[in-house]
Amino acid sequence: MNPALSGERFVVVYHLRGTREEATAKAEDICLEDTVELPLDLVPDGPIRSEILGRVENIRPISGDVFEARISFAVETTAHELTQLLNIAFGNISLKPGLRIERFEFPDNLLESFPGPRFGRDGWRKMLGAALRPLLCSAIKPMGMSAHECADLAGRLALGGIDIIKDDHGLTDQPFCRFEERVGRCAEAIQKANAETGMKCVYMANVTAPQDEVFHRARVAKNAGAGALLISPGLTGYDMMRLLAEDDDIDMPIMCHPAFQGSFVTHPENGISHHALFAQLARLAGADATIFPNYGGRFSFTREECAKIALETQGPMGHIKPIFPTPAGGMTLQRIADMARVYSGEVIYLIGGGLQRHETDLIEACRDFRRMAERSIMNDDARRP
Amino acid sequence: MNPALSGERFVVVYHLRGTREEATAKAEDICLEDTVELPLDLVPDGPIRSEILGRVENIRPISGDVFEARISFAVETTAHELTQLLNIAFGNISLKPGLRIERFEFPDNLLESFPGPRFGRDGWRKMLGAALRPLLCSAIKPMGMSAHECADLAGRLALGGIDIIKDDHGLTDQPFCRFEERVGRCAEAIQKANAETGMKCVYMANVTAPQDEVFHRARVAKNAGAGALLISPGLTGYDMMRLLAEDDDIDMPIMCHPAFQGSFVTHPENGISHHALFAQLARLAGADATIFPNYGGRFSFTREECAKIALETQGPMGHIKPIFPTPAGGMTLQRIADMARVYSGEVIYLIGGGLQRHETDLIEACRDFRRMAERSIMNDDARRP
Repeated sequence: MNPALSGERFVVVYHLRGTREEATAKAEDICLEDTVELPLDLVPDGPIRSEILGRVENIRPISGDVFEARISFAVETTAHELTQLLNIAFGNISLKPGLRIERFEFPDNLLESFPGPRFGRDGWRKMLGAALRPLLCSAIKPMGMSAHECADLAGRLALGGIDIIKDDHGLTDQPFCRFEERVGRCAEAIQKANAETGMKCVYMANVTAPQDEVFHRARVAKNAGAGALLISPGLTGYDMMRLLAEDDDIDMPIMCHPAFQGSFVTHPENGISHHALFAQLARLAGADATIFPNYGGRFSFTREECAKIALETQGPMGHIKPIFPTPAGGMTLQRIADMARVYSGEVIYLIGGGLQRHETDLIEACRDFRRMAERSIMNDDARRP
Repeated sequence: MNPALSGERFVVVYHLRGTREEATAKAEDICLEDTVELPLDLVPDGPIRSEILGRVENIRPISGDVFEARISFAVETTAHELTQLLNIAFGNISLKPGLRIERFEFPDNLLESFPGPRFGRDGWRKMLGAALRPLLCSAIKPMGMSAHECADLAGRLALGGIDIIKDDHGLTDQPFCRFEERVGRCAEAIQKANAETGMKCVYMANVTAPQDEVFHRARVAKNAGAGALLISPGLTGYDMMRLLAEDDDIDMPIMCHPAFQGSFVTHPENGISHHALFAQLARLAGADATIFPNYGGRFSFTREECAKIALETQGPMGHIKPIFPTPAGGMTLQRIADMARVYSGEVIYLIGGGLQRHETDLIEACRDFRRMAERSIMNDDARRP
């Protein structure tokens, strides 16, 4: 064996649509397409064929016309780069219909290359002084408000007891609400509210931005007093989130937003499963919390898909910390009791417009939100697992 | 009107699945979801409702159950950032099924924020000394070869008259073939071949890499004598390609690869159309050539989809230069005559494995490739349009 090859392999589990014969052909195609990109008869003998080429570890039927294939790849093909890892798992093969990544199985020597979330669930809880209860998040919206209006809203949300007040993910550096001004005013308003309430609410600034601006904005946010960062890896690339998470000077928890990523999940026969995308990849790339559309809201995710995401936010993944699922998208206070059965207390509830509906008494609506979230873990089937 | 708002709007054309009533509801939902993210009754009167909110310009049936909606957004909502432009067009709404971006219509004052391709078709032709004929590209593969083996292959491809010799998009910085060594050896082998043939073949290095490595690798490649860069924006984010294209020191033509982007196009009811993704966005983000799977090869793109991509690589787009379509994926010499009817002479033909099948006489196979490509524009229906 080539001395540069350790023999260690990672596994991608794919769901393949078709008869057994078709699924087997698809599995063999994945092995070629995402590594050597040559027809099998042109692949040279020796380590390229025995090690570099993907390998079908096993294949089994899981329903009438879906087969599950476990395919392994040499760890070294990834060059221990997140970009190249995604390329091996779903580069060219993403262009072929009828196959979907179900989950990843990473060995320790691959995970070691990725520090993952810097804070994770425990880090959030410590920062926010909340040992057991669900955490509360709301958003500064709508786009179009001035920085003053954003700060006014942020202050009232903080007075109401929200833990994390985030920029809506569409707030960047628009001429009607510049990043630097917004971030300064919002952080200040929240600090003022904290001084009044004695709570530890944090402002989360959106740093989804041009590549050469992301770190600048993160530093501006930190200097202004923000406590966390929001980023949409579908727009910046996953590796930008990884780089932010690894930065010792930035050193803030990160929440990721699913903008521009819907096409990976909207069709059940293609793409990447909800839990592999929004939990496994989010964790690998350093997110401390992962936003996704909750079941029964404005989007079409099912309760089962959401439960699987939640499960994978804490599934075994070597040294990579568990992170918080952050279900969102048209949520209301009335949904919390049911959501607690899916997410237990290990969740960040994100309610935006659902609180603003109580505009005349927004602070009181936030307090209701807090009470309902606390109460939601008082019954047996929704305790911390 | 808010003085920060110019009144200028850009248009995204969506295809919406359903009855007229359902399609209308989807169009109205897009207007909210990708801007204010609030239910309509909570959107404040004034400029937020009249300007920031998306606006359905018109909606018309285009087939039994598909409607086309032209939806406009205030240019300022994008903050003139590519990341935020994609967020407005397909951020949250990507998470809902049954709608697809068909095309973009950008006004000049938005396009002015994006220099686009630095070289474009004319730049490639000038650099390669090829005024009219199709350009020829081949790939260094399979992954697993040493840098020596890569350079040997590159040299033979160059001796055969290939114009652009690219790293396979899976070659990054693997321990069995380090970036710096590969790039140095390949560029040298190609320069040596050029000295022999008198041609102007260029080496194209793959700079798809971790965020903090992309520019470093581009500089290493340039210093080593590479003439062009390959990048996969699905892995790095589109904005990384834009940044590379805008850099006066890098100053090399860029080809983009569709790795990890398949989910946008694999299902016809969701995602982004082939031509909007692989032509319009590629151009906006600075690609000088765009690789996509050709019809009739290993992938499932149709001839019509490919023809539309080719059309949009030269469609009107303000100051943004036309770029080369680069159909690929299991192509062979025998396909060229038919491809010429789709792409005319304005194309980069990318054949990888199809040349390696003639391993014993690779150089002669390249010469055949060149002859067939030149001959392909000799008949009336395949001249430069």
